[in-house]
Amino acid sequence: MIKAQTPKGFRDFLPEDSLKRKFVLDKIISVYEKFGFDPLETPTLEYSETLKGKYGEEEKLIYQFKTHGGDEVALRYDQTVPLARVIAQYGPTGLQKIVLPFKRYQIQSAFRGENTQKGRYREFTQCDVDTIGVSTPLSDAELLAIAYEIYQALDLQIIIKINDRSLITDIEPKYLAAIDKLKKIGAEGVLEELQNKGLSKQQADQTLNKVKQLTPSENLNEIIKTFTQMGYSKDILEFDPTLIRGLDYYTGLILEVVLESEPNGSSLSGGGRYDQLIGKFTGNDLAATGFSIGLDRTIEAMDQAGVLTQAKTATKVLVGYSASENLNKALELTTELRKQNISTEVWLLSDSKFEKQFKYAEKKGIGFIALPEDSDKIKLKDLKTGEQNTLTLEQVIDKLK
Amino acid sequence: MIKAQTPKGFRDFLPEDSLKRKFVLDKIISVYEKFGFDPLETPTLEYSETLKGKYGEEEKLIYQFKTHGGDEVALRYDQTVPLARVIAQYGPTGLQKIVLPFKRYQIQSAFRGENTQKGRYREFTQCDVDTIGVSTPLSDAELLAIAYEIYQALDLQIIIKINDRSLITDIEPKYLAAIDKLKKIGAEGVLEELQNKGLSKQQADQTLNKVKQLTPSENLNEIIKTFTQMGYSKDILEFDPTLIRGLDYYTGLILEVVLESEPNGSSLSGGGRYDQLIGKFTGNDLAATGFSIGLDRTIEAMDQAGVLTQAKTATKVLVGYSASENLNKALELTTELRKQNISTEVWLLSDSKFEKQFKYAEKKGIGFIALPEDSDKIKLKDLKTGEQNTLTLEQVIDKLK
Repeated sequence: MIKAQTPKGFRDFLPEDSLKRKFVLDKIISVYEKFGFDPLETPTLEYSETLKGKYGEEEKLIYQFKTHGGDEVALRYDQTVPLARVIAQYGPTGLQKIVLPFKRYQIQSAFRGENTQKGRYREFTQCDVDTIGVSTPLSDAELLAIAYEIYQALDLQIIIKINDRSLITDIEPKYLAAIDKLKKIGAEGVLEELQNKGLSKQQADQTLNKVKQLTPSENLNEIIKTFTQMGYSKDILEFDPTLIRGLDYYTGLILEVVLESEPNGSSLSGGGRYDQLIGKFTGNDLAATGFSIGLDRTIEAMDQAGVLTQAKTATKVLVGYSASENLNKALELTTELRKQNISTEVWLLSDSKFEKQFKYAEKKGIGFIALPEDSDKIKLKDLKTGEQNTLTLEQVIDKLK
Repeated sequence: MIKAQTPKGFRDFLPEDSLKRKFVLDKIISVYEKFGFDPLETPTLEYSETLKGKYGEEEKLIYQFKTHGGDEVALRYDQTVPLARVIAQYGPTGLQKIVLPFKRYQIQSAFRGENTQKGRYREFTQCDVDTIGVSTPLSDAELLAIAYEIYQALDLQIIIKINDRSLITDIEPKYLAAIDKLKKIGAEGVLEELQNKGLSKQQADQTLNKVKQLTPSENLNEIIKTFTQMGYSKDILEFDPTLIRGLDYYTGLILEVVLESEPNGSSLSGGGRYDQLIGKFTGNDLAATGFSIGLDRTIEAMDQAGVLTQAKTATKVLVGYSASENLNKALELTTELRKQNISTEVWLLSDSKFEKQFKYAEKKGIGFIALPEDSDKIKLKDLKTGEQNTLTLEQVIDKLK
C-alpha cells in the first residue's frame, strides 16, 4: 500500500479548485487570443545548459537530474528562457518557422525548489503573453490593454501601476531593491535599508526623493497616449516612480496590477519591456514585451472579492430513479440532456434508494435532481431552494440551460 | 548563447500544432464534462515510493531524482497511480473530501524514458476519464458512450472493439500477449510466436481457436444492452475475443477504438474495467472503469482524414494602416473588433509599407486584412480568395464572425 502523500510544496487540485482554475484560465486565454496571441507549448524538461547562467542567484532553485541516457536536464523554471530558445531555434535565424513579430501565450507549469516555509509552491502555473520583435509603443500599450481586459473579464476592480525603467538607470540595483519596498515598509523603512546598504542619512534622503520626484518619460507618455487611442481610459493607470519590479532585465515600461481596494497590497500580475534579454540567447538583440498573470494570487483575490461563484462540480443535474424498471427512462433522459450539452450524471449504483441519491447530489454540490415518472413527465428538484416541479422534457431543458 | 535544442524525445508545439491540440482537447473536455466528470490535477512530481512497484518491468522507464531537500521524487508516469493516491488520501477512508462514486477526468503530461529510436515520445499528454466506486454495467456502458461521442465530435468514423477479460482468465499472460498481435501479424505469426513461447503446434492451434470461438459473456451482453438503452446503436460495437490490451490490470470489459477505415490498424484509444487496482493502493478493493484517449494518434488520424482544418493562427484579421495619420483609426477599429470577440492583430511595426503587412498576414496564415480608410469605411481583403470590398464596420464584423 502506498503512503498517500502529496510531495511537500506541491499541490493536488481536487475538482472544486480545478474548476476554479479552469474558469479563470479560460477567461485569460480568451483575452490573449482576442489580442492575436497564439499558444506555444514547450517541454517540461530542457537541457540544463539551456537554463544555465540565466537566473542569477536563483539558479540554485532549478530542479536538475540526469536522464537514463545520461543527458543533463532541468525542469522548466520559467517560460521566458524556453521562449528565447524557441525564437533562436525556429525564428528568422533558425528554421524560419516563426515569423516576427511573434505573439505567443504560454500556460504551463514552472518548478522551483523554494523554501516551503515561506508558503511558496514548488510547482505553479505561469500564464505568460509576449510579443517578440516590436520596439514601437504599440506593444507596450497592448500590455496595458490586456491587463485591463483580463481583470475586467474576471470582475476585479484594479489599478495598473506603471513606470519606465529607463528613468532610473543611474541608481544602483541594490538601492532600487530597497525603494521597491516603499509600499510595504514605508519611507522610514526604506531610508533605514538604504543606510544599511551604505548610504549616509542625507544620501538616502536624496536618493529616495530623487526617485519620488521623477516624472513620466516621453516614452511613457507615448504609451499612455496609444492606450487612450485604443479606447481605454487613462484613469486606470497610475504613474509610480518607485515601482521597480525585481527582475533586472526590464529596459522600458514596467507595469504591475494591484487591486483598487488594496493599492498597496501585493501585485496580482505584472510585466514590461525587455529589449536585451532575447538577444542574450539568439545573438541578436530583439525587442520584447511581456505580461504574466499571477494565477494563484488572482484566484485568491477573486475568492476574497466573492466573484468566483463556481459550483463545486461541473455536473448540472443528477438523473435518479427508484427501481430498475425506471432505469430505462433514466438512461433515455440522461442522453437527451447530454445532447443539449447539459452536464448530466445518472445514478450509477445498484442501491437505488432515493435518499442515497439525494445525499450524493447534495454532498457533491449538484444543483438539481431529475426523476423520470411513469408518465412522460419528469420530477425536477432544485436542491438549493428545495423547489420541486413536475415538468415536460422541454421544460426541464429550459430550466437547466 | 544557448545551443537552441529541444531535448531528445521531447517536443515543442508551435502555434499551428498547439492550436490543433487545443481544438481536440476542448472537444474531449466538453464530452467528459457532459458525462458528469470533473477535472482533477495532480503534481508533475510524486514521491518515488508512490510509483514504486506499480508498473512491473516498465518501472525502469520512470524519471527519478533527488530534490534539494533530499526527497526522492519521480515524474508522473501515468495518471492512474496518482488517481489511486488521491482516492486513498481524500476519499472515504482519508480526508473525506471526495465522495464516491468519483468521476474525474485528468489531462496532464506523462513522462517515460523511452527509446526514442522507436519513434516514442518521452513526454506526452494523457487524457483520462475514470469512474471510481461503481460495479454496475452502467459505468462500463458509459465508457462506450464516451468513446462514441468523442470521435463523433472529432468527425472520425470509428468502430469500438470490445471484449471481456474475465472470459480468458485461464490462459497465461504470455500467450495472451501473442494472441493480442493477431491483427498485426496474422494467424501464422501468432501460431509461430505461441510455439516460440513453448507450446506445441497442436497446443498453439487449440489455444488460438479456443479464444477465437469465445462468445460474449453475460456481463458483456448486459453492457451492450445498457449502451442501447442509452440510445446508441450497437452496430458501432464489434465483439473481438482476441482483443487483449496489454495491461494486466483489467478485470472485465476492455475496449479499443479503431478507425472504421482501418479496422486492423493501431487503436486510437482504449480502456476498460479494473476492479482490483485501486485496492492495491487503498487497502480496499474499489470497482473502477476508465478510458484514455491517445491524443497523438487521434490527431494524426484526423490530419490524415482531413478533418482537422484548423487555421495556422487563431488570429482572424490583421488591421493595417498606411501612415501614422491612420494609426488612430486602426487602433479604434482593432478595439471594436476585439470587443466583438474577433481575434485581431494590429500592425505593430513602425515600417508601415502595405506590402510588408500583407506579407506578414500571409506568412502567418491570417485570413483577412482590414484597412481603415479616410471615410469611415474599411477596406477588407480576403487573403484566400483575393476578394476585396469596402465595407462599414457592421459589415466587417458580420463578415468576420
